[in-house]
Amino acid sequence: MRKLYAIGIGAGDPEHLTVQAIDRLNRVDVFFVLEKGEEKADLVRLRQEILDRFVTRPGYRVVRATDPPRDRDPGNYLAAVADWHRRRTDVYERMIRDELAEGQHGAFLVWGDPSLYDSTITLIEAVLARGTVAFEYEVVPGVSSVSALVARHRTTMNQIGTAVQVTTGRRLASGWPAGVDDVFVMLDAHTTFDRFTDAGLEIFWGAYVGTPDEILLSGPLDSALSDRIRETRAEARARHGWIMDIYLLRRPSQGAPETR
Amino acid sequence: MRKLYAIGIGAGDPEHLTVQAIDRLNRVDVFFVLEKGEEKADLVRLRQEILDRFVTRPGYRVVRATDPPRDRDPGNYLAAVADWHRRRTDVYERMIRDELAEGQHGAFLVWGDPSLYDSTITLIEAVLARGTVAFEYEVVPGVSSVSALVARHRTTMNQIGTAVQVTTGRRLASGWPAGVDDVFVMLDAHTTFDRFTDAGLEIFWGAYVGTPDEILLSGPLDSALSDRIRETRAEARARHGWIMDIYLLRRPSQGAPETR
Ligand SMILES: C[S@@+](CC[C@H](N)C(=O)[O-])C[C@H]1O[C@@H](n2cnc3c(N)ncnc32)[C@H](O)[C@@H]1O
Ligand SMILES: C[S@@+](CC[C@H](N)C(=O)[O-])C[C@H]1O[C@@H](n2cnc3c(N)ncnc32)[C@H](O)[C@@H]1O
Repeated sequence: MRKLYAIGIGAGDPEHLTVQAIDRLNRVDVFFVLEKGEEKADLVRLRQEILDRFVTRPGYRVVRATDPPRDRDPGNYLAAVADWHRRRTDVYERMIRDELAEGQHGAFLVWGDPSLYDSTITLIEAVLARGTVAFEYEVVPGVSSVSALVARHRTTMNQIGTAVQVTTGRRLASGWPAGVDDVFVMLDAHTTFDRFTDAGLEIFWGAYVGTPDEILLSGPLDSALSDRIRETRAEARARHGWIMDIYLLRRPSQGAPETR
Repeated sequence: MRKLYAIGIGAGDPEHLTVQAIDRLNRVDVFFVLEKGEEKADLVRLRQEILDRFVTRPGYRVVRATDPPRDRDPGNYLAAVADWHRRRTDVYERMIRDELAEGQHGAFLVWGDPSLYDSTITLIEAVLARGTVAFEYEVVPGVSSVSALVARHRTTMNQIGTAVQVTTGRRLASGWPAGVDDVFVMLDAHTTFDRFTDAGLEIFWGAYVGTPDEILLSGPLDSALSDRIRETRAEARARHGWIMDIYLLRRPSQGAPETR
């Protein structure tokens, strides 16, 4: 039986790797690396650094493939998305079926935690559902960019027994989520936080969290801080050629100082 | 300068420890262990197992203290909570000030990820705010029980670019949270999921996730499954004398098969 691993590698700091992840890395015959159009050389380098540093078992192979790009401006949105999903599943199927022999172990190194805004698990399930190649698979959890962000800011996800939301920039653009005081925003290319300035919120922002290029900014979200984050972000993005950033918007809740 | 670490140790599997956590464990002179009234011998044992397995530096000390219990049925709720917070801060202050010498490193081993429904960071900040003992501190992120749960179920936190909520049993009791299709429920002593049976939801439930006693159940949340989880939970709780469980309630969203 082929065996696959989806291994969470943490969100930028190689030291986020878990003992379990390192154990699984050392059972792998073939590492699959998906190069996305937008995927940055820096991120590919970090994955290689992880292999160099933590894999002591010799003789593994690295198989690279290109993650098919998505038509960002299609005539028929749903058909285009379904088509994209099919093309991506094709790539995964081919890798698993053609590059892995019976009894071999393959792995995808997944940024952060594999469960959060990542399609690896969905695509592995889609290949399984086709029934064209049999395999077992295991998911190895990792430190997400959410955990990494709050650790660096030395704050918590939740306040006093309150709820927390994790969402995307696109969703935040349609307004403050109901029923929560703490909102983590990922995948935001449009600094959507600037719609919420001077509303009594705090922001905890981080770019390239956990890497040597990490930038952290936080404080009451007034327009001065909003401008400062926007400018810092634009400047860093121009300098690096890409950016990954995440932030927590917090509405200080009115509770007593108790957290459980 | 004294230095403190709040180290996330993962949610039950010692192999969730990160390289960073192991590095920090090996800089520590004094480990602080808070014994809660409800804290179970099994969990104290897991912490000891982590020290035995991963700390190679000899000569550390372990200092135990009792986390003051909370008055669960006070006359004045807010005053009682504030009083409890003050008593807990006293305990932390005493440990840091009296058990750690200038220049020494101390650590709290925090279950799961220190940012999620845990008071260690809040209490360290409260001690700092008192200004009675100076120290630096660092938070080391860990694998949360949320990440551990979905990894074991091989599912994701979010669907197709949708938002995710993390909440408590108490909050879920007041109704399905607005604006989200995926809800993680922690700290639920009352199997609150049973209010949502036969509503088109899926449940992914786990108890003692990541430990040798792990139990996983999942499927469409009809009353048969709800009963089965409730019975399994009661039986396991009786057998172990305690339980920790967490679940994801998912409303399958109507999107196309795309996850980013
Ligand atoms: C496709 S999602 C993958 C998330 C990943 N699975 C995780 O657990 O963090 C990419 C988004 O994660 C966030 N992100 C990931 N790593 C980050 C880092 N090191 N610093 C800041 N943001 C990060 C950004 O919001 C980015 O847009
Ligand atoms: C006080 S909170 C601490 C959470 C922890 N900081 C984390 O990141 O998972 C305790 C709650 O976490 C959940 N939990 C923690 N570890 C768990 C495990 N191994 N299995 C199931 N639930 C767990 C349960 O819902 C429990 O009531």
